[in-house]
Amino acid sequence: MKKIYFQEVGLRDGIQVEASLVPLEIKIKWATELIGSGIDQIQLGAFVRADKVPQMADTEELFRHFGRGGKPGAAELSALVLNEKGLERGMKCGVEVFCMGSSASETHSRENTGMGSDEAALRIAAMAKEALKAGKKVRASVQSAFGCGHEGPVPAEKVLTIVKKYLEAGVRNVGLSDTAGHANPHQVGQLFQAVAELDPAAELSCHFHNAYALGLTNCCFALAAGVTYFETSFGGLGGCPFIKLPSGNVCTEDLVHTFQRMGIRKDVKLETIIAVARDAAAFFKRELPGTIMKTGSIVDFKGEE
Amino acid sequence: MKKIYFQEVGLRDGIQVEASLVPLEIKIKWATELIGSGIDQIQLGAFVRADKVPQMADTEELFRHFGRGGKPGAAELSALVLNEKGLERGMKCGVEVFCMGSSASETHSRENTGMGSDEAALRIAAMAKEALKAGKKVRASVQSAFGCGHEGPVPAEKVLTIVKKYLEAGVRNVGLSDTAGHANPHQVGQLFQAVAELDPAAELSCHFHNAYALGLTNCCFALAAGVTYFETSFGGLGGCPFIKLPSGNVCTEDLVHTFQRMGIRKDVKLETIIAVARDAAAFFKRELPGTIMKTGSIVDFKGEE
Repeated sequence: MKKIYFQEVGLRDGIQVEASLVPLEIKIKWATELIGSGIDQIQLGAFVRADKVPQMADTEELFRHFGRGGKPGAAELSALVLNEKGLERGMKCGVEVFCMGSSASETHSRENTGMGSDEAALRIAAMAKEALKAGKKVRASVQSAFGCGHEGPVPAEKVLTIVKKYLEAGVRNVGLSDTAGHANPHQVGQLFQAVAELDPAAELSCHFHNAYALGLTNCCFALAAGVTYFETSFGGLGGCPFIKLPSGNVCTEDLVHTFQRMGIRKDVKLETIIAVARDAAAFFKRELPGTIMKTGSIVDFKGEE
Repeated sequence: MKKIYFQEVGLRDGIQVEASLVPLEIKIKWATELIGSGIDQIQLGAFVRADKVPQMADTEELFRHFGRGGKPGAAELSALVLNEKGLERGMKCGVEVFCMGSSASETHSRENTGMGSDEAALRIAAMAKEALKAGKKVRASVQSAFGCGHEGPVPAEKVLTIVKKYLEAGVRNVGLSDTAGHANPHQVGQLFQAVAELDPAAELSCHFHNAYALGLTNCCFALAAGVTYFETSFGGLGGCPFIKLPSGNVCTEDLVHTFQRMGIRKDVKLETIIAVARDAAAFFKRELPGTIMKTGSIVDFKGEE
């Protein structure tokens, strides 16, 4: 079986819509612990306008902190960039993996970027090329790949057209994002198989939301379809502010727990992630959607003592 | 593809642990609506001691009501029976399907019945034989089939030994119940395939709990493994009072929604089930675990008007 990679996006997709600003020192604490858990990649933030997304205003400072030797493990540090300006900022402060994407939904694409799907995809492909040329890793994703809160169903051909543009730009890691939470297990299998047929060597990445209760389910079907990169958020925090029914990301510790129950990636320190999720619930002063942070792990449960 | 059957157990497994007693007229209202939704089977109650499970005290009356021509649709009426006494009571009042089972966990079995797994399974096999002889349908299930809150892992051989006893007694519909919520998707596929190998013509039934967030996921993997009968509870009500971490059943309307998104059983009136779930939340005066009762359905969502 191929190696599975966990990509923590809680510090970006998880908290970006939270009204309470998370202070830099708390972000550093959470990131330090998450990196120490042995997950594979952590998204520290996004290079976006601070006036539009104040929660992401200290992304440079976070990268400077961890770039100066503050990184306690092997996790790669990634950031989201939306445009050339963001890419430029990220290039200057030690981003190892650039995450970027464009939407397969015309409405969602225009709402996010002012551009239609085709134009936005070409722009992302050009940005990806530039980052790759500079020796950076890139994940390029197709947003609203499984359906759109405005448009409803999104044709698979639209998704595959965008993926082709990414592959032609030299991208190796291709993501499909279920921005609105519309994906169903059959569709997940079919769409990832279609992407794999475009380039059997591509690394497949998935990003699901729980709007209709299928986040974990879709991850498990993605796993069965050959996906090896999983973007999730500790505590199940998050949701896209631009979609109609915002709802949480797949919860990191719930997915790690599920996979470890099947014998996958038992090296990851689940208890560390659970502790961060509980800390986040205390910080935000509310119950978070994650399950395992409440039940505790049964990964190695062998019966009562 | 084989036909999929929905088996509503909310009026039994869903409410049996609720402290607020549901009056007979409310049960009749909910059952009438659920039957009208086009689901395939509804469990009206259990023939157990009224002093031990007061919520089930009016099971006879419910059967008498629906047996007297009060049944508005084609749904079969089922009941849970734990022992010969319960079977006898059920025989007298129009039960169409008897649901019964024994546990693959010694500890769980002794706690529920005072008997070990082998003895309990033989007793259930004998009861099944008697009900079948009387012309009744029977579902015989293995409880704690995927793990036990006390014992941890349960060997597959223990499960299969019990299934063999059921099959030898003439049972056609065999269920595996994840009483503690320990099942994982790989295990679900493997164990149901092993049961199917014992008798390829057996009807496979599943009953999952959400304790570790995998109820819907395991249903979808059960579907992929050839399971055609799904026991669920409207609103996601329920949980077994005897296990360590009680938690809800898979939510009926969430599963129907998931399956309908994949084109399965679109004849079922999802909105009717959602209405009952919302009614139950109002009755119990709290938020229930179901998702689709909160988001609404996107089964046929074709975009904004």
